[in-house]
Amino acid sequence: MKKYHKQDEKSYALGITLTFELLEHRVKQVTKVYIHSSMDQNETFLRIKNICQNNNIPLEFNDKVFRILSDKENCYVIGEFTKYETQLDVNQSHILLVNPSNAGNLGTIIRAMLGFNITNLAIITPAVDFFDPKVIRASMGAIFNINFAFFNDFINYQKIYQQHHYYPFMLQTDNNLKDCHHEGLFTLIFGNEATGLPSSFLHVGTPLKIVHSQEIDSLNLPMAVTIGLYEFTKNKFGVTNE
Amino acid sequence: MKKYHKQDEKSYALGITLTFELLEHRVKQVTKVYIHSSMDQNETFLRIKNICQNNNIPLEFNDKVFRILSDKENCYVIGEFTKYETQLDVNQSHILLVNPSNAGNLGTIIRAMLGFNITNLAIITPAVDFFDPKVIRASMGAIFNINFAFFNDFINYQKIYQQHHYYPFMLQTDNNLKDCHHEGLFTLIFGNEATGLPSSFLHVGTPLKIVHSQEIDSLNLPMAVTIGLYEFTKNKFGVTNE
Repeated sequence: MKKYHKQDEKSYALGITLTFELLEHRVKQVTKVYIHSSMDQNETFLRIKNICQNNNIPLEFNDKVFRILSDKENCYVIGEFTKYETQLDVNQSHILLVNPSNAGNLGTIIRAMLGFNITNLAIITPAVDFFDPKVIRASMGAIFNINFAFFNDFINYQKIYQQHHYYPFMLQTDNNLKDCHHEGLFTLIFGNEATGLPSSFLHVGTPLKIVHSQEIDSLNLPMAVTIGLYEFTKNKFGVTNE
Repeated sequence: MKKYHKQDEKSYALGITLTFELLEHRVKQVTKVYIHSSMDQNETFLRIKNICQNNNIPLEFNDKVFRILSDKENCYVIGEFTKYETQLDVNQSHILLVNPSNAGNLGTIIRAMLGFNITNLAIITPAVDFFDPKVIRASMGAIFNINFAFFNDFINYQKIYQQHHYYPFMLQTDNNLKDCHHEGLFTLIFGNEATGLPSSFLHVGTPLKIVHSQEIDSLNLPMAVTIGLYEFTKNKFGVTNE
């Protein structure tokens, strides 16, 4: 056992909540569950033990693993899983991130996606390691509940998802998000944290900007994505829930 | 020199960017600027040196201070300042946070506020230490650009700001944010990260909810505030910037 590295075949859900999300949504990927010796053998423990027994997942008491993998003191359960691939649903709307570089941001975005029922994420590489435990933690486990796929170029995404209407978010356009009327399948496209989208995206679909004050350079990436998600789904949610 | 504590009279802007924001917006509060010995004596350094000379602020080379105050390797400048008080502008709209508990969240919210030109923040105590260097860092220096005030009870806020229309954000209401028509001065009210707003706020102004999927318990606090800020300011920005 050594520290997590990007090229490892396995990754880890650190903590009870994340491990439950892993077991609930990706149980076939789980190879082992580690328990810390200071974990109370309470109801939660028995639930985990049950799920593991029913799915032939070994349960291991091993405090050393916690010292190696977790920098949080209150981590008593670690779910180990084999990394996996998924496919995007062609009949659902997508988020597309071009070269996202920050693990915390990626996890926060995945959590927000689940919050607005947009559960298909395309990523243009190079990008931050999708299965970094930091991404998993920042997603609060939402990562196990979404589809994702990687593309080395936007062209390769475009070839497959031709029915989607593309909305690149960028400040170089005059189209204000609030005035955008959309229907059908959409793909909301966001650039890298530091560099934004290349200007070539001005010729892709309908570029949109979120107007903000002159006092800041730009909204941070998770906020821009959250606002896009909210604006594009609010009428759908209004109908469903009222 | 010792580690920062909540009860200290001084706090610190860690890094070049934050120190520039501090010097630009709160220069009279600055008591010293520390420079690390490995800082290049480049143009940035000369700019800081100039500002300090013009304002009689001592510049000190002191690497020990960096080891004590900063856990980041690439921190070469620290701005030390005396904590200060401000007053809220009665003629501007406000954000009101009830018992916010997380430094990163508070900083992120302050940054988003500046992004949408809502620059008056009321906080109901107990709350996370406003001047914690972690708040300053997460705000990316926006903290030096806003007004803030603390109240030990919502009643005490209400007494002073009677002209504002109150919008508590809470899931127990059926009023959907997207259908809310507002005019005049507003105060958007958000509860604690873990507990939300007490149900007594259902009788305050116009409670609003941001409808989200059943897959998550709630949106995280900075996201809820960002969506509220966006929805309440988007028409104003539309007019100003088009």
